[in-house]
Amino acid sequence: MSDLLSEQKRYYAERAPEYDDWWLRRGRYTRDGEQERRWLSDVAELEERLRRFVPRGDVLELAAGTGIWTRRLVPVADQVVAVDANPETLALNTPAAELVVADVFDWQPPRRFDVVFFSFWLSHVPDERFDEFWELVRFALRPDGRVFLIDSGPPEVPSDGERQVRELADGREFTIVKRFWRPEELAARVRRLGFELDLELTGNRLFIHGGSA
Amino acid sequence: MSDLLSEQKRYYAERAPEYDDWWLRRGRYTRDGEQERRWLSDVAELEERLRRFVPRGDVLELAAGTGIWTRRLVPVADQVVAVDANPETLALNTPAAELVVADVFDWQPPRRFDVVFFSFWLSHVPDERFDEFWELVRFALRPDGRVFLIDSGPPEVPSDGERQVRELADGREFTIVKRFWRPEELAARVRRLGFELDLELTGNRLFIHGGSA
Repeated sequence: MSDLLSEQKRYYAERAPEYDDWWLRRGRYTRDGEQERRWLSDVAELEERLRRFVPRGDVLELAAGTGIWTRRLVPVADQVVAVDANPETLALNTPAAELVVADVFDWQPPRRFDVVFFSFWLSHVPDERFDEFWELVRFALRPDGRVFLIDSGPPEVPSDGERQVRELADGREFTIVKRFWRPEELAARVRRLGFELDLELTGNRLFIHGGSA
Repeated sequence: MSDLLSEQKRYYAERAPEYDDWWLRRGRYTRDGEQERRWLSDVAELEERLRRFVPRGDVLELAAGTGIWTRRLVPVADQVVAVDANPETLALNTPAAELVVADVFDWQPPRRFDVVFFSFWLSHVPDERFDEFWELVRFALRPDGRVFLIDSGPPEVPSDGERQVRELADGREFTIVKRFWRPEELAARVRRLGFELDLELTGNRLFIHGGSA
């Protein structure tokens, strides 16, 4: 694994206990009421979109993290296999899923699934591993299998390159990959790899989401 | 306020930082995979039920706590006023709601609402304050206003009395009120106070839920 990906993995291991503060906008992630309302509205939109997608059958979640979405997949799926590189984050996930500690960049699915799901993960896949990652998705899916993804929406002002420096609550800094995608750009890119995805942004453009058309 | 209610209030203030561990079944609340699946399935049922209720308009949430449900009310409501006795819990709630520090047993709603919502609260209302609490609900509602409630399901073996001794992660003990309700029993009790509630248990009987018929 590259140094950058090792550092990214370590960042998420160390961030595990404070990860949900980001999602729940607590502590240093607290914003004002209006920003909060936009966030919660877009979160509700994601949940509704996933509900309509119906992630039924055998579901594979890649980079499952602390389980914010795993807990929403479990009640609909027959079974959820939740893969994450860090035992520190899986310790906060749910034992209602089959939890697998494995690096997504170095893992072969032992069987095939009806749905492959990943949230806030694709933006952390560096460009040079992009095609390889989608090969894994294809390999993990049954012929009629479906993909669903959620990620950060693109910033108003496009960022330069695909690296970010992130800081933990205690001030330690890590360099990670963060590559933003616009819906049409991502749809075109994966179409060349054989995936037809119906992607869009949430109303306040905070998230990109969608799945197999 | 009675000593018991003061102790209950203090318990929830002290429990604030570990409260969500209960909801997310983390740490000492971790159960096995099968129990987790039942829990997550019943949680999904609660969310679906609230979605169908549509908590629109001006919403008052009583004993709002750390905001597990406040965050689901905000995207649907025009405005949410979230009342809780403890600033410690409201600090973990969302600024997308209007946060009011006030003891529900000693508070007058300053205006009227379309919906009054409370989760895991009614079971903490002692029998002697039951009618008074529902007076507050009536007083807080517009003439066509609606109620929605969520609470713990009744245990298989009925418990004796309405007190429980609860322990925090650090071992400190508190005595609190915990009064379980069966749907038909609660519906009959509030019918005498002028409320028609459509109440039921979730599929695995973990929660009671429902609202104005």
